[in-house]
Amino acid sequence: MAEKKKSNLGITADKEDEYSEWFTQLMLKADLADYTDVSGCIVFKPSSYAIWEKIKDLCNASFKKLGIQNSYFPLLIPEKVLSIEKEHVEGFSPEVAWVTEVGNKKLSERLAIRPTSETIMYPSFSKWIRSWRDLPLKLNQWNNVIRWEFKHPVPFLRTREFLWNELHTVLATEKEAIEEGNDVIAAYKDICENYMALYGMYGRKTEKEKFAGAVFSKKLHYIMPNGKSIEGPCFHHDGQKFAKAYSIKFLDENGKEQYAWQNTYAITTRMLGVMFAIHSDEKGLILPPKIAPKQVVIIPIIFESTKNETIKQAKKLASDLSEFSAFIDDRENYKAGFKFNEWELKGIPIRLELGPKDIEKKQVIMTRRDNGKKETVKMQDIKKAISSTLDDIQKSLFIRSERLFKSKVEDASTLSELKRTINSKKVAISPLCSNEECEDMIKYETGGAKTMFIASNLKSKNEKCIYCKNQASYFVYIGKSY
Amino acid sequence: MAEKKKSNLGITADKEDEYSEWFTQLMLKADLADYTDVSGCIVFKPSSYAIWEKIKDLCNASFKKLGIQNSYFPLLIPEKVLSIEKEHVEGFSPEVAWVTEVGNKKLSERLAIRPTSETIMYPSFSKWIRSWRDLPLKLNQWNNVIRWEFKHPVPFLRTREFLWNELHTVLATEKEAIEEGNDVIAAYKDICENYMALYGMYGRKTEKEKFAGAVFSKKLHYIMPNGKSIEGPCFHHDGQKFAKAYSIKFLDENGKEQYAWQNTYAITTRMLGVMFAIHSDEKGLILPPKIAPKQVVIIPIIFESTKNETIKQAKKLASDLSEFSAFIDDRENYKAGFKFNEWELKGIPIRLELGPKDIEKKQVIMTRRDNGKKETVKMQDIKKAISSTLDDIQKSLFIRSERLFKSKVEDASTLSELKRTINSKKVAISPLCSNEECEDMIKYETGGAKTMFIASNLKSKNEKCIYCKNQASYFVYIGKSY
Repeated sequence: MAEKKKSNLGITADKEDEYSEWFTQLMLKADLADYTDVSGCIVFKPSSYAIWEKIKDLCNASFKKLGIQNSYFPLLIPEKVLSIEKEHVEGFSPEVAWVTEVGNKKLSERLAIRPTSETIMYPSFSKWIRSWRDLPLKLNQWNNVIRWEFKHPVPFLRTREFLWNELHTVLATEKEAIEEGNDVIAAYKDICENYMALYGMYGRKTEKEKFAGAVFSKKLHYIMPNGKSIEGPCFHHDGQKFAKAYSIKFLDENGKEQYAWQNTYAITTRMLGVMFAIHSDEKGLILPPKIAPKQVVIIPIIFESTKNETIKQAKKLASDLSEFSAFIDDRENYKAGFKFNEWELKGIPIRLELGPKDIEKKQVIMTRRDNGKKETVKMQDIKKAISSTLDDIQKSLFIRSERLFKSKVEDASTLSELKRTINSKKVAISPLCSNEECEDMIKYETGGAKTMFIASNLKSKNEKCIYCKNQASYFVYIGKSY
Repeated sequence: MAEKKKSNLGITADKEDEYSEWFTQLMLKADLADYTDVSGCIVFKPSSYAIWEKIKDLCNASFKKLGIQNSYFPLLIPEKVLSIEKEHVEGFSPEVAWVTEVGNKKLSERLAIRPTSETIMYPSFSKWIRSWRDLPLKLNQWNNVIRWEFKHPVPFLRTREFLWNELHTVLATEKEAIEEGNDVIAAYKDICENYMALYGMYGRKTEKEKFAGAVFSKKLHYIMPNGKSIEGPCFHHDGQKFAKAYSIKFLDENGKEQYAWQNTYAITTRMLGVMFAIHSDEKGLILPPKIAPKQVVIIPIIFESTKNETIKQAKKLASDLSEFSAFIDDRENYKAGFKFNEWELKGIPIRLELGPKDIEKKQVIMTRRDNGKKETVKMQDIKKAISSTLDDIQKSLFIRSERLFKSKVEDASTLSELKRTINSKKVAISPLCSNEECEDMIKYETGGAKTMFIASNLKSKNEKCIYCKNQASYFVYIGKSY
């Protein structure tokens, strides 16, 4: 079979040495996405979209417990409304797609396609919120946004249109706002760690890298197999900045008018790409069982003389294993080896083979997708074996992702060490001051590396900024990023 | 309480005499939607969006059984790609919103915001489909589309942006395509009748009114309380028209190249408006229990001396009734009467009142939202009573909607009868020939009425077209429409 695998159907690029080509092939050959006639925009095919739906369901369940409700606001934002909060509009304006014509008619005012929905939601919030009784207001949307970046697009990871949730909350006090932040991030983190099996680090962005208009931004951060950092779910605390710009005020219990406090949060389809890239290998997709739409494929080993009985037993097995969304591949015009490769490519966590000899011996051959290990399992033990194997795959993938992350990080206390780290496709932890110019210069010196997040406070007051040598403010993670 | 109801909080317009104003107030005061800064685009507030999510879940469950998978294609469509199928682009071009600029840069080619996705999906279909083994392909999307109509927008019913599913299927034969049409329409019909409690009629559009690019279009049709007709879920059979325009071909089992057959289907957020308008009354929203996000509200009748016990018992009741998503309104700063009105306005199907006397007598007072009937129910019988009352509300609303539909339809065999019918805000059944000019003239003569759908074959060959008096081709429903 080994040669077959390297045919047109399988992935022919090496993950280590030809990472970009490997990722592109993974996306296309595992049937996750495809390019389209619109540059930078992809088709989410059923196998990736089903995972996105699962992420949505998981978030919705957590959000419900936190009193968050789903809603939908318009796609288009009048230019005037978009421009009210200055820092915000400056942050987004280079990437905004503008509708200027309808049919053959020129519009009198340009309409932006939302790059994010603060500016279309907050005028409504201002209208709806009158008193402390109207708070908290916690509205979420699952929608599509456009950010027309001119950087090289990468399927899932950097697309000009992407899907996300954007959760916008309004609270009476700063304290509540901060507490809520912890709850929502805990919900995202649970999904990323315990379902997507991704080890990430949560940290605050520097002033330079925070969200346009926010008081501070905190995000989950991941490191890709090629050593580039990438941002995951995020939490922006807006303080009262948007409340002041959009006049979101309420009468408190003493009848005094106050500006409200606001937060926003998001998880995007980018996380699909992070997960696909981190777990998968040269054979194709590897999916954590808890996020995989289907966990078990059953492949009957067919010989003409025993065909009917084999297929009958395979069907029985599939129905016994319905809790694992088991399915049979009983296509007649494909050989078993071809099927093995196909389902490895598409990332089904467990493969079961069932041939006439196995039926005789009341056994089934079980193969794990993550490490290829094969074992013979007695039919009577199969449910237990699958259940514990799925658990083990789930845990192993998380551990592997933690190991990957940690292997990509090293301390760098001088500029030359930092450059060496970045050149070796890793991420550095370095001391930095809060002067934005030092971040600019680091970016320049390293050919594009940016601060990912603030790692920790200083160990001592003697730490010096890696660039200017003045007193450092904190340690930061620095890396090239998507 | 009666005066209070006519306060700012309740609806002050009559459904019969001030229908438009009534509908606007219903939408705003029952907290279903709100206007925004973008003309013709609304906010779907949580109480309406939750119903849309329920419709999505119901459709998804049916679609899954039919082998349909969800996916996502880009929002933006390059002008060149949009223009490939001539009839299609002509049908949509007056309503297309065009992106012409990004940031400060003019695009070299205009990008359309999808009014529907045939033109962005079918180039992918053409690429993906090679052989009969790739068929059928059944891809669904839940997304947002823009159709910039210049008619007066009406929340839910006619908005420039709306949400929908668009299901696009590719099949090997015409026969399969037609059979699939019946299955998908049966799924939509089930949801509209058995969940949304809406009586509608399924029928084929005339050539003039069919979807731009289709061979034929069939839709479910509804009649609104104001006598205007409105289209519900639809099925367009495209034959091989798009397949020929977009080159969707496959090798059949004999190795012969064939064009594929295609269908498209949709249900939109317009159906929310149809349901709200048909069932509701001057007190506010009425929702069929099977689509209502919450079925039961419990209002404890609070006196200072028995407060704790009453609330305790109400909480126990709510937890006993969790299968009906029962919730308590125990807000302290509102009177019971205010709460009654609020939950009537917001359409909770059943209200339970529980006061100290009821607790003593082991009973609860149950009021139906649909007809206001109140009864005392023994606590031990409450689950059974709620269950059968919800069933009865569900059935009654459907029967009422059927009665409404039928009361709005009458036969008209002459042009003057037709005008009279249309003027009395009803829908006519009339004989018509297949000459499109007759449809144009009927529209002109009646001040805007159009054919809704073909009702039935002729009873005899002697039937004459209501306009030209030549031989008629069929009976049609004619009405003013949204």
